[in-house]
Amino acid sequence: MVIAVDAFGGDNAPQAIVQGVAAASLKNDTKFVLTGDEGVIKSILKSIPHNHETISVFHAPEKIEMDEHPAEAVREKRNSSMVAAMNLLRNKEVDAVISAGNTGAILVSAISYVRRIQGVSRPALGTILPADKNPVILIDGGANVDVRPECLVDFAKMGSIYAKTILGISEPHVGLLSVGTEDTKGNKQTKDAFPLLKEANGIVFDGNMEARSILSGDTHVVVADGFAGNVCLKSIEGTAITLFTAIKEVLNDGLIGKLCGLILRKKLRPLKERLSLDAHGGAPLLGIDGVVVKAHGSSKAVSIEIAIAQTEAMLKAGIVDIIKNNIQAI
Amino acid sequence: MVIAVDAFGGDNAPQAIVQGVAAASLKNDTKFVLTGDEGVIKSILKSIPHNHETISVFHAPEKIEMDEHPAEAVREKRNSSMVAAMNLLRNKEVDAVISAGNTGAILVSAISYVRRIQGVSRPALGTILPADKNPVILIDGGANVDVRPECLVDFAKMGSIYAKTILGISEPHVGLLSVGTEDTKGNKQTKDAFPLLKEANGIVFDGNMEARSILSGDTHVVVADGFAGNVCLKSIEGTAITLFTAIKEVLNDGLIGKLCGLILRKKLRPLKERLSLDAHGGAPLLGIDGVVVKAHGSSKAVSIEIAIAQTEAMLKAGIVDIIKNNIQAI
Repeated sequence: MVIAVDAFGGDNAPQAIVQGVAAASLKNDTKFVLTGDEGVIKSILKSIPHNHETISVFHAPEKIEMDEHPAEAVREKRNSSMVAAMNLLRNKEVDAVISAGNTGAILVSAISYVRRIQGVSRPALGTILPADKNPVILIDGGANVDVRPECLVDFAKMGSIYAKTILGISEPHVGLLSVGTEDTKGNKQTKDAFPLLKEANGIVFDGNMEARSILSGDTHVVVADGFAGNVCLKSIEGTAITLFTAIKEVLNDGLIGKLCGLILRKKLRPLKERLSLDAHGGAPLLGIDGVVVKAHGSSKAVSIEIAIAQTEAMLKAGIVDIIKNNIQAI
Repeated sequence: MVIAVDAFGGDNAPQAIVQGVAAASLKNDTKFVLTGDEGVIKSILKSIPHNHETISVFHAPEKIEMDEHPAEAVREKRNSSMVAAMNLLRNKEVDAVISAGNTGAILVSAISYVRRIQGVSRPALGTILPADKNPVILIDGGANVDVRPECLVDFAKMGSIYAKTILGISEPHVGLLSVGTEDTKGNKQTKDAFPLLKEANGIVFDGNMEARSILSGDTHVVVADGFAGNVCLKSIEGTAITLFTAIKEVLNDGLIGKLCGLILRKKLRPLKERLSLDAHGGAPLLGIDGVVVKAHGSSKAVSIEIAIAQTEAMLKAGIVDIIKNNIQAI
């Protein structure tokens, strides 16, 4: 399998991206195409251990910035590292694309170059959350801020397929993100989506759920429009950061605090890692006719390695074909 | 001042509610009317220290359950502890109402009995969040799940007035909860509200903000529709609970962990209290022609005491009149 990795997407690009690919190249025989400024990529590669037989570079000198207007950037920067990667996927020269770049631009370029799967109303970002019992997929994490209620049914189906094939959950339960657990709770959007989800084939719909219980992991697929989903994700992220910062302060306060900190740091690290949002891989963009994974904007080398392993799993499982067969069949 | 307290609202009612009022009655000369089943309330009061001169009981034998349909419950249970409290406020027999009961029913009964302030499109729940630098008010926390963009302007104004008069922030900055900080980010609702907020008089509008940065406290008034606001709140709550549970496990693991736990528990307690959502009082229902405070559903006695202090502050500041003058003037 061949994976194109956008070397110039994300806050720590290109250094962290190239490093992540270099590390992954030493693990198995997956092939990589790094897209971006050839000179810069090659000079980074030169200084770090990597398998030079499985990494190639596709020269694309332009770069889409994190705060650029997605549609304009994709239209104007055809020689950007991101658009180049999507183009390689369109032309079947690679099997998948990973980018830690501008989320909106990833969505726009994936739709315009790689195309939607026929029958999918809107591709959506599935964000993997580290819940207590098992990972959970929240879909949509922010690709579509305004959607018709019907789209949430597609999100539920694609999320269930991901949970089953990649997260290893044999019978994924779907919850609709709302303001209460009762059937009657919600806004117009969720109230319209509720009966559609209830009647949908191929999913196990548990009804409404509250954001409060997401991290328990009892619901495997959390369905929301991209606005509510994104607000939920960023609230979780902000709270985790605030809490860990505060705990760090407690552990740095006074001699006894520091001593405990020394002992506890090792014990707390796995917890912090578990709750770090990119420890469970990137966000798969589901509904696109090809595997596209959005790595976290602040991805470090290790996050890219994890996103690569996730992409390999998605390719091995043939997730795009499974979605094709299941969305069209219903 | 006289405050009616719904003795039968909330998960720990009536015990915790009556206990909270009893404790508050020993502090100053505020008068209280406890609404609910007289026999039950009096028998609880009998067993605990309280000022019997400042606490009276208004017999209202019915009770609105936490999961009842709000409009139906309010219509049908006119002799409920909640409706009785609102009726006392309508008739000016009390100056304020506190209830830890069914949020929807509080909203419906406040609107139908106490009435909206003229000029306010929708009353909204302001939830007080314990941010790093200062408390922050998120409005609407869940009273109105579907609103017109114009309503968000009223929320911003009422939130700013609360931040100024009760939270002590001299020049409150307002942020619109969205999926990015750029002006162009958001869904249809926030995009429509953005220019209205920008043009609104009497507020300092900082533009869009992400849920990630709420707990920093840089923005004092976070404006959202009740759906997004509620999702945000419950995400913060769920994450804090998950994290503290996980930390507790680390501190219970092995002898060294337990030893550190013993030492750290004292240091961590203020942090946990700071992040507990009801430590900063109840949620004021702003836009009603009277002071109405919704205490957290799981309120303990101490949460009721805090909500009482908050209600006293709102009455002293004359917040209802300030809202009347500022909403109508613009």
